[in-house]
Amino acid sequence: MRGRSVPAVLERARELAAPALEAALERLSPEVRPLARYHFGFDDAHGNPAGRPDGKGVRPALSVLSAEAVGGEATSGVPGAVAVELVHNFSLIHDDVIDNDKERRHRPTVWAIWGVGRAIIAGDALLALAQEVLLEAAADDDAEGQGRTGAAARCLAEATGAMIAGQALDMAFESLPAVDVASCLSMEAGKTGALLGAAACLGAVLAGAPVETTNALRRFGVELGLAFQAIDDLLGIWGDPGQTGKAIGNDIRQHKKTLPISAALAAGGRGAEELAALLSSDDLTETEVVRAAQLVESCGGRAMASEEASSRLSLALAALESVPLGDRPRAELVDVANFIVARQF
Amino acid sequence: MRGRSVPAVLERARELAAPALEAALERLSPEVRPLARYHFGFDDAHGNPAGRPDGKGVRPALSVLSAEAVGGEATSGVPGAVAVELVHNFSLIHDDVIDNDKERRHRPTVWAIWGVGRAIIAGDALLALAQEVLLEAAADDDAEGQGRTGAAARCLAEATGAMIAGQALDMAFESLPAVDVASCLSMEAGKTGALLGAAACLGAVLAGAPVETTNALRRFGVELGLAFQAIDDLLGIWGDPGQTGKAIGNDIRQHKKTLPISAALAAGGRGAEELAALLSSDDLTETEVVRAAQLVESCGGRAMASEEASSRLSLALAALESVPLGDRPRAELVDVANFIVARQF
Repeated sequence: MRGRSVPAVLERARELAAPALEAALERLSPEVRPLARYHFGFDDAHGNPAGRPDGKGVRPALSVLSAEAVGGEATSGVPGAVAVELVHNFSLIHDDVIDNDKERRHRPTVWAIWGVGRAIIAGDALLALAQEVLLEAAADDDAEGQGRTGAAARCLAEATGAMIAGQALDMAFESLPAVDVASCLSMEAGKTGALLGAAACLGAVLAGAPVETTNALRRFGVELGLAFQAIDDLLGIWGDPGQTGKAIGNDIRQHKKTLPISAALAAGGRGAEELAALLSSDDLTETEVVRAAQLVESCGGRAMASEEASSRLSLALAALESVPLGDRPRAELVDVANFIVARQF
Repeated sequence: MRGRSVPAVLERARELAAPALEAALERLSPEVRPLARYHFGFDDAHGNPAGRPDGKGVRPALSVLSAEAVGGEATSGVPGAVAVELVHNFSLIHDDVIDNDKERRHRPTVWAIWGVGRAIIAGDALLALAQEVLLEAAADDDAEGQGRTGAAARCLAEATGAMIAGQALDMAFESLPAVDVASCLSMEAGKTGALLGAAACLGAVLAGAPVETTNALRRFGVELGLAFQAIDDLLGIWGDPGQTGKAIGNDIRQHKKTLPISAALAAGGRGAEELAALLSSDDLTETEVVRAAQLVESCGGRAMASEEASSRLSLALAALESVPLGDRPRAELVDVANFIVARQF
């Protein structure tokens, strides 16, 4: 019973969430608002309308669908959708500063235009706003609603903390020669899984679903996040630069310890040794990057990450099957999950 | 009925809050925790115990006293005390990056030791942790407690948003030749008033006080914050570098538009013109800094900021008188307020 194709589901969630997101951004101070609107793609760097926001909108769609999946109105998931988008984009703005990335989605990053100081403040403002939006979702005189928004805010704060811990670990890995696959997965569960887990349950928490249901939805989101990240890791080496907006072999150059790289280094043997030697160099030539990518593949890193994406997707779908959910929203959650993992690389 | 001298009140609150703060920091990931423990003064840069945390501990004391003032236990204010300390110190760590300050309290700043990227992440982690600490203060099965923690978290999120907006405005002012006094006060109400307002009411919110009472306590904190900032502005020009840990005339050098500077520039006349000309220079000599400070004083900026501190203190104390509060905690709140405003400069 699949009523809508995947892009239509994402589009429907975007149409619900985008006005609420824009309304939330209006609450930012005039010094911060233009940076935020630019980053989200609402405006260009001069404050002129820039068409439509960037991004696939997977996180807000998950929040809206999770409200519907437990019998709630789509609108009850909207504060969760806005809050996860704000947290996700706070982390992108700060990540670009930390990684010294001058471009994102084929546009200059916030710090590249307005400087590091203002980019830090803009990210901070989005994080504070995310909690405000969630905590104000219930009316002051609605004690039950207050309890739900409090639970939702707690879920978001915990996921945000886990995401930041994952980012800190990711940074620490860059200066290590190798990390084992388990450590890599643990880092990715924080960096990517935690916030997708929150996205996939916030709508249900706000709609008042029982805790077994919201926990299952969170597990769905966390596993989906790991599948998503495995694909991202593949794209970080073999992705089409025209699609990813990043240079080919970007993760190899940046000494990232992603899943395929960690798995290849852990495989041992001559190939892994040659790869380790290549990755220890600070400034790789184009030829060396291509060679490193070949070695990651011949050491089994590419196959391992592909298998990881598939098995995490299966675990995500199993979590969805473990609790009673509405047929149509469940089918749409499955569609979104398949869509994410089917990205080309 | 003043049972304790002011340092004793601050010491008592510190003894309650410091173990809870340390316990909260234990929840940070191993990549972030050492930076946070160093910043708070628990450890040195190598992770060895460094004695006792720095800072006067005014914010945590206000939270604990506000719980007692409404008849609650001191301990019920502790999650608020920890949360405001985390938010305050998140902002200090990021501010030091933004202002390029290499020292704070006579020690190297976090970014000066661990770099900008890790300092950004450490600040982010403290902000996320602040919300977690507050939202977890109530037991899962205590609906009324959940409502209180939700209200407290909302109060904190709004204050954090206002603080960040004030910081953004403060940064924007640095590149303006002058700002009027009203704009300066509005900036300071955000930058300093908002979080002190939250500190002064969070304990009462957590203890379940009625909204008129918590609003009056917040007003007390906001006005106290403005008095505090007026004193800080005086210290930023005439403070003893040995006490403040900053170079003499620091705010003049950094083109800060603080209260005495804004008031002096707004006074008009030859002195204000000479001051404006001096402040337009990028690199002031020692003699020019001294001359600028003299001009701020002769144009009335020093007297204005002193009067502002006094009148804000009066407004703060009037807010305390406007609602029924316990005698002993009320007297201690008054003592803390007088102590803050009586700082030497």
